[in-house]
Amino acid sequence: MDRRVVDALRAIVGPRGLIEPGTRALPYESDGLAIYAQRPELVLLPADTAETAACMKILHDAGVPIVPRGAGTGLAGGATPVAGGVIVGTARMRRVLELDVENRRARVEAGLVNVDLTHACKSHGLYYAPDPSSQQACTLGGNVANNSGGPHCFKHGNTSQHVLGLLIVQHDGTLLDLTAPRLDPLGYDLVGLFVGSEGMFGIATELVVRLVPEAPVVETFLGIFATLEAACDSVSDIIAARLEPSALEILDRLTIEAVEASVFAAGYPREAEAVLLVEVEGSEPEVAGCARAVRAILEQRGALSVHSARDAAARKKLWAGRKGAFGAMGRVAPDLYVADAVVPRTKLRELVLRTVEIARAHKLRLATVFHAGDGNLHPNICYDRRDKDELARVLAAGDEMLELCVQAGGALTGEHGVGLEKQQQMHYLFSDADLRQMCRARDAWDPARRLNPGKLIPVRVCEEMRAGSVPEGA
Amino acid sequence: MDRRVVDALRAIVGPRGLIEPGTRALPYESDGLAIYAQRPELVLLPADTAETAACMKILHDAGVPIVPRGAGTGLAGGATPVAGGVIVGTARMRRVLELDVENRRARVEAGLVNVDLTHACKSHGLYYAPDPSSQQACTLGGNVANNSGGPHCFKHGNTSQHVLGLLIVQHDGTLLDLTAPRLDPLGYDLVGLFVGSEGMFGIATELVVRLVPEAPVVETFLGIFATLEAACDSVSDIIAARLEPSALEILDRLTIEAVEASVFAAGYPREAEAVLLVEVEGSEPEVAGCARAVRAILEQRGALSVHSARDAAARKKLWAGRKGAFGAMGRVAPDLYVADAVVPRTKLRELVLRTVEIARAHKLRLATVFHAGDGNLHPNICYDRRDKDELARVLAAGDEMLELCVQAGGALTGEHGVGLEKQQQMHYLFSDADLRQMCRARDAWDPARRLNPGKLIPVRVCEEMRAGSVPEGA
Repeated sequence: MDRRVVDALRAIVGPRGLIEPGTRALPYESDGLAIYAQRPELVLLPADTAETAACMKILHDAGVPIVPRGAGTGLAGGATPVAGGVIVGTARMRRVLELDVENRRARVEAGLVNVDLTHACKSHGLYYAPDPSSQQACTLGGNVANNSGGPHCFKHGNTSQHVLGLLIVQHDGTLLDLTAPRLDPLGYDLVGLFVGSEGMFGIATELVVRLVPEAPVVETFLGIFATLEAACDSVSDIIAARLEPSALEILDRLTIEAVEASVFAAGYPREAEAVLLVEVEGSEPEVAGCARAVRAILEQRGALSVHSARDAAARKKLWAGRKGAFGAMGRVAPDLYVADAVVPRTKLRELVLRTVEIARAHKLRLATVFHAGDGNLHPNICYDRRDKDELARVLAAGDEMLELCVQAGGALTGEHGVGLEKQQQMHYLFSDADLRQMCRARDAWDPARRLNPGKLIPVRVCEEMRAGSVPEGA
Repeated sequence: MDRRVVDALRAIVGPRGLIEPGTRALPYESDGLAIYAQRPELVLLPADTAETAACMKILHDAGVPIVPRGAGTGLAGGATPVAGGVIVGTARMRRVLELDVENRRARVEAGLVNVDLTHACKSHGLYYAPDPSSQQACTLGGNVANNSGGPHCFKHGNTSQHVLGLLIVQHDGTLLDLTAPRLDPLGYDLVGLFVGSEGMFGIATELVVRLVPEAPVVETFLGIFATLEAACDSVSDIIAARLEPSALEILDRLTIEAVEASVFAAGYPREAEAVLLVEVEGSEPEVAGCARAVRAILEQRGALSVHSARDAAARKKLWAGRKGAFGAMGRVAPDLYVADAVVPRTKLRELVLRTVEIARAHKLRLATVFHAGDGNLHPNICYDRRDKDELARVLAAGDEMLELCVQAGGALTGEHGVGLEKQQQMHYLFSDADLRQMCRARDAWDPARRLNPGKLIPVRVCEEMRAGSVPEGA
């Protein structure tokens, strides 16, 4: 990289905000999907919006690709610098700028860690609802890029339903201030479009987000089942009964074993084939009524045992296994391929069993965790990436599982994004015409296509449009 | 208009689907905001997606402006052919194509009337949640264009939270099929962006929408108050108590008088200064608990009386006044200017009173109805548009109210859209840079800008971009 450009960037961010290639730059070679690691030319960690804007202007003028990055906890390669270029991270922008308790919203910097926002407003009885499993580490800006979900999004909705405004540094360093209250949508929904755009439309440095009041009463249930089918059927029954729990999570046997063997041990019986977590929240009579109905369903479906808790510490213990599941799988194998697919809820049971078959056919170990309420499956394949043959089988099995889910009327990703990983599978769901319309939307934000290149849209589709071989409107 | 173009269009839609200028075309000169009426060159009513696409191709090749139209119940001039051209209406596309009861979704044509979808799925215990006051007449396609709300959107969210997929006829007649299940967002959220784009991105001919299960128990409360302030304070208390009613609506004195003098008479006492409607839904214990708390708050705030009902017919009677309010105002004056602004809920009481002052200063009669739960005010000015002086005062008062609401941290429109009416006020909330980014998004869908020209984005901003006087990124 041109030294004059590097020097100009260092003059803006200072020595703390610039990492040159070397050992310190290693963590920036990939996100959680390490198999596609790639070395960045430079890593920038600006301290605020002004520094970000100044850096973006220089990079734009120099024609350098830019890869925005939150905490790097993504699982689809979204923050991997696949085309080289410079990583621009938000790690130094983690302030809560304003808490508006009365109107239940906060203005925060993009690098704020998800759970830290809840810590900051907890004393006011408020919290930030979307809760990805990585919430102890992932940033709110990264959540925006991927429209992240989490167990409680079943009731409260994904990130897009909680972002009210954004301050965006555009591709050339200009600012787009969309932080004016979007109490209701007004004009084209540019904020909504930006959420989930995986770093290809700019870098949001400040966010205005909704805060949600803590429910007066929360009760968590943990049902232990002898079969995965019985756990799935309980979920169907709960939804058919029109109960509205805030979370519905299932863990399968291998996940339970991994959890119990780890520091996250939650006391789940190891002979269980499935664990179902149900959380109910609301006023005392609401929770009491719903709780009775949930317990009756779990028992009717043959739960071996049903535990419940209202006290925060006891509830945390019931959740411990779920929250620690991904970490615990490190004990099973050195690498974990976290698949992410969505299926119509009515086909959940059938498709869970078919992913088990696919894994078996490829001789792979599968641990499944899923947001059962919204049909979001996470079949996790435990493997060792140094074993090239196993790695190839992992990728083949992952692709088969996705294709199966899409054929059943599902979607390619529930919450992890498309990133680098799934761009070649986008055509399972979208025609070339659809993808070209996405590319036109991209060009409206970044005409030179230097923001996070090689992600989300298959590169071929964008190349064909650039070559002009596609007539307008085709 | 070139006769060959008209003949080609007639060959596609047949004589039933084409209206030439004349008496039958009169209703198409405006939507509900009649003051800006303008004659269309032609009205087309295609029978399905294929006819719509064929018409759009011909109109594109002929370079004719196109104004999409649902039922014309809009209130911001969104369907007014301000730049001439051809109206393309969806009135003949009103089929329910598929009801998927198990997965709670429906595939429908865009011209289906909002309430007819609920009628179609009622026997399965499902309904379509967004319920604009015009739901007996407005179409689902029109709801998509304006991201419509309604009383129950306080709990269930606006149209954008209920649209899962769209089949879009683009500016040149090509199809964009975004109906594949969007169980979770995937790729850029083009469907979300299209919702609320006010007919400027294409014509959605088919929609996949969410259906919501009817709550087991619904209870409606009607509190009669001697002051508007007491009604507003009750709303604040209900929200502060973290109760979650599905609707919170207030009607002021003039509205009550109009309703009681009309066929919609609901038995509201005429001496009341305000009526507050609260609806609670859920399971029996949920509703019982919430109902006790709501009643206690209304009584504590000095309600003159509190009525409640669970039975559907009795509930309908409590709602009759609210649902008939806009119709009833026809008795007060020949014209009604329905303002639409949003304010932070914490400032509701103060701003309602200030809109009353503004109306008084302009010697206008104001009847206010509002979705109090989400801070969405509808100060309705009763007037006679033949009185040019009064009309000028109406427009001046409306502008003052909007500016006031925006200054208080609110928004320009809650649910009616920007349309023709508010494009000149968009700069109250957006900078030129923001508006130019909207224009770039528009160009990604309609590079020749022939779809609903003169709406939403101030014309000046688009013209400057076309003239190329704005450098890229500025």
